Amino acid sequence: MRERFLRAARGQRTDRPPVWLMRQAGRYLPEYRELRADHSFREAISTPDVAEEISLQPWERFGVDGVVMYSDILVALEPLGLDYHIESGVGPVVADPIDGPTDVPGSHDPVDDSLDYVGDLLERLTERVGEEAAVIGFAGGPFTLASYAVAGEPSRSHVPVRGFRAAHPAAFDDLLAAFADVVVEFLQYQVEHGADVVQLFDTYAGLLGPEDYEEYVLPVHQRILDAVDVPTIIFVRNMAGRLDQLAASGADVVSLDWTVDIDAAREQLGDLPVQGNLDPSYLLGDPDFVAERTRELIDRAGSSGHILNLGHGVDRRTDPLAVEAFVRTAKSIER
Amino acid sequence: MRERFLRAARGQRTDRPPVWLMRQAGRYLPEYRELRADHSFREAISTPDVAEEISLQPWERFGVDGVVMYSDILVALEPLGLDYHIESGVGPVVADPIDGPTDVPGSHDPVDDSLDYVGDLLERLTERVGEEAAVIGFAGGPFTLASYAVAGEPSRSHVPVRGFRAAHPAAFDDLLAAFADVVVEFLQYQVEHGADVVQLFDTYAGLLGPEDYEEYVLPVHQRILDAVDVPTIIFVRNMAGRLDQLAASGADVVSLDWTVDIDAAREQLGDLPVQGNLDPSYLLGDPDFVAERTRELIDRAGSSGHILNLGHGVDRRTDPLAVEAFVRTAKSIER
Repeated sequence: MRERFLRAARGQRTDRPPVWLMRQAGRYLPEYRELRADHSFREAISTPDVAEEISLQPWERFGVDGVVMYSDILVALEPLGLDYHIESGVGPVVADPIDGPTDVPGSHDPVDDSLDYVGDLLERLTERVGEEAAVIGFAGGPFTLASYAVAGEPSRSHVPVRGFRAAHPAAFDDLLAAFADVVVEFLQYQVEHGADVVQLFDTYAGLLGPEDYEEYVLPVHQRILDAVDVPTIIFVRNMAGRLDQLAASGADVVSLDWTVDIDAAREQLGDLPVQGNLDPSYLLGDPDFVAERTRELIDRAGSSGHILNLGHGVDRRTDPLAVEAFVRTAKSIER
Repeated sequence: MRERFLRAARGQRTDRPPVWLMRQAGRYLPEYRELRADHSFREAISTPDVAEEISLQPWERFGVDGVVMYSDILVALEPLGLDYHIESGVGPVVADPIDGPTDVPGSHDPVDDSLDYVGDLLERLTERVGEEAAVIGFAGGPFTLASYAVAGEPSRSHVPVRGFRAAHPAAFDDLLAAFADVVVEFLQYQVEHGADVVQLFDTYAGLLGPEDYEEYVLPVHQRILDAVDVPTIIFVRNMAGRLDQLAASGADVVSLDWTVDIDAAREQLGDLPVQGNLDPSYLLGDPDFVAERTRELIDRAGSSGHILNLGHGVDRRTDPLAVEAFVRTAKSIER
């Protein structure tokens, strides 16, 4: 329910935790695989008819409280003229990676031109779900976008972009700023078109050491989140040792990966609402195991300011019955 | 120098920090690439003549204080009858991955049979470097070995082994115990053949949540490290939020990845010696940048119980001049 989601995002008490899952629309769902058989990934996300149906699949099947738009963090590369495609078995590949300071883009196309299909999708979703669920928009964060743009393809430890920081510190700053400009415009555009809440996925920024994170990443997170007028959620992995840097972003909700101890997080973050943080691999266990672990997490997280979610996206090997057990456990709570 | 290394490992004051680098013998060195042109990776590590020469290359070029045997964490799969090969562009591939509880190996071949080339190599290195450097042995940790054995190939978030834990908790425990048995025997064997110090690389175990780590990983680390009679070093990534779990392993030295703040680590770990933790991507910057950052780290780490190293292995894109700047900075210290 939309109101339950927004209450939790404001830190208020809820009758039960609102629930959704990162990457809840995806390959683990047979109805998703069926639809995707006829459409490439880029085609599916940029065709509002198809993207609408996919976005709604987990809502229709499980009755989650949040409907996240079916899209991709990399679409924010488009307004900067960075062309990419999805290569089977590899992942996203950027045609012409950023190789040095002179490649850093100086300006971008208006978001409502190149990404108008996102606005269209959000309007459809808002109209369709009404008060029944919160509509969630999102964007990739500057470091994560920069990582793909510099490496040109997925990279295990994101060494290329980290090496770019070492070799060209000033250009690295400019690069993050260029992405931040796009992300600000993109998230504001999403809010104008109906997003109730937006999540910033700077998933890989925690691969910078604490000082580099403070110097380069935190200021752009603050600028982005300050520019958005609906509740915001921030997600960065590998931040268990420095949750204060997530809190300092100004986000309304901190999304915790599964390596964060929920009790320690609650203690460190005080009243700041949290999202998460069940280990997604638990959903490869049987439904009883999932229900037990989910129940434990809900109890530990407490009754105010907790949005139930995983600590990362749903894995493609997940049985939909495990997701069902996860959502059902949230719904079984009465308080 | 051997004595400088051992003093730091015992937490004592040293005239300057001893220095070595994880993966210091590797593709970034032209003399390594030249030698490897004639030998496959498996052939190079299992031929003592070749492995000796490769192990000594960084010592001869840079004068590091530690010579780490040229080998691979996965050799510990061999005594368990798990066959693997290195596939170009993919990494290590295990021929017959562990798929369920019935695949968990119950016993292993004696280490001095299947891994006798390691003992031979260590004897050669000890004889060659004498008091000039510490000879460092190592083994992969149980979780990291299990990850390769279950997934069958490198996996970004190690979901297969984490899913194995969720689906088969008891068998997961047995699997880690089976690897721990091999690792104990293997490290003792290395000490018998001359290793001055050994490092346990359970690099990926930090991908388990804190409770799972406590339940499954910590007890095997304790058992392994307790069984070894020379100074031990433990290395696990993504542990910044729970350094206490590394300290509890009983290791003599805790190796810190680059996402750990050195001041916070020193405060949390008290007198426990540390190793690390320069961001390896800094070595993609110019030599002045490397020297400046290295100097800063040395100053912050203090004059006792610090072994200078990177926070992870040397990246193959590194210029040897950057490594030279790193080592030279350590040697320039006078105190």
